[in-house]
Amino acid sequence: MKVGVLFSGGKDSALAALLLAPHYEVELNTFAFGEGRDLGAVEAAGAVLGLPWERRVFPDGVLECALDRLVADGYPNGAIRLVHRVALEALARWYGVVADGTRFDDRVPMLDPGEARSLMDRCGCSYIRPLLGFPRAEVDRLVKSCLVIERGQTGHMPNGDYEDELRAGLRRRGIDPTSLFPPVHEQTLVRGRVG
Amino acid sequence: MKVGVLFSGGKDSALAALLLAPHYEVELNTFAFGEGRDLGAVEAAGAVLGLPWERRVFPDGVLECALDRLVADGYPNGAIRLVHRVALEALARWYGVVADGTRFDDRVPMLDPGEARSLMDRCGCSYIRPLLGFPRAEVDRLVKSCLVIERGQTGHMPNGDYEDELRAGLRRRGIDPTSLFPPVHEQTLVRGRVG
Repeated sequence: MKVGVLFSGGKDSALAALLLAPHYEVELNTFAFGEGRDLGAVEAAGAVLGLPWERRVFPDGVLECALDRLVADGYPNGAIRLVHRVALEALARWYGVVADGTRFDDRVPMLDPGEARSLMDRCGCSYIRPLLGFPRAEVDRLVKSCLVIERGQTGHMPNGDYEDELRAGLRRRGIDPTSLFPPVHEQTLVRGRVG
Repeated sequence: MKVGVLFSGGKDSALAALLLAPHYEVELNTFAFGEGRDLGAVEAAGAVLGLPWERRVFPDGVLECALDRLVADGYPNGAIRLVHRVALEALARWYGVVADGTRFDDRVPMLDPGEARSLMDRCGCSYIRPLLGFPRAEVDRLVKSCLVIERGQTGHMPNGDYEDELRAGLRRRGIDPTSLFPPVHEQTLVRGRVG
């Protein structure tokens, strides 16, 4: 059975993909708002995992909708959750089983149980979160046992996180993104395998 | 790293153990209220998985406490949740990482996120639920791909479910268990491996 995994190139979605790989035919999928975005480092992270990788583009209007939400809220959680939900729904057009790297301790992006059921009911798919039952200490332990990762701040890591494009969108609207995003947000990028 | 998995001999806890086995040193643990309970079929299910198995006995008083709760509630959910929580807490005395077969769709037994965090904080352990992010259809798919299971009703399946002992405890108190338990509750027992 094929499963489409939402893949940022970071440690969590990589670990989720590796946990599913013995049981499913895993394909990695990275969404960007525009065709032009450089996702070379994310594609390379997929190659490190030895799994096929696809670039996907969000439907028109999603970025503006997310920016509206971000500005209205004054902080990014709702906008990032919205973008993540749209990505899962879009993925369900190609796959009967979709998955992501959401962890037990995540708050954003995180679908609550009702939203997860609604996604499955509306899209007729299964939605798997292999890390949902793993607390942070165990995710860290598993990542360390199998992946070489690089850490850095948003804007300095070429992974598939949505924050860069949201920040650029705000700047196009004449809004300083530093007024809406937390000052520090660590990102990760898979650079190699252990052993 | 060792992980102590709560194991009933049924499909969910067996699948949880198999998902952890490539990454942890898995040990299966089955709790009973008394030394005398026949757990031969559960031990055999553990042998089918090729994993070490331990019989554990609940501390004194847990059965009576659960029966009080069951009678007070008029239905078994709270009592079963209580027993499950006590089993996890007891397991955390022997293991730094404990796990169970709780699924996304489970209601009983199911610790809510706050209870799961409290267990980890109070007991200084990690608590993993490998199936928490898997909806029923995917659990069924994975079980079918790797396990031969037998299905039957509570009371007719020699697995490690707590319901039999709770029913017997009610009868000792002169209470008809059929007045407090749902009429139909399917159980499973692992009988073999696929392939």
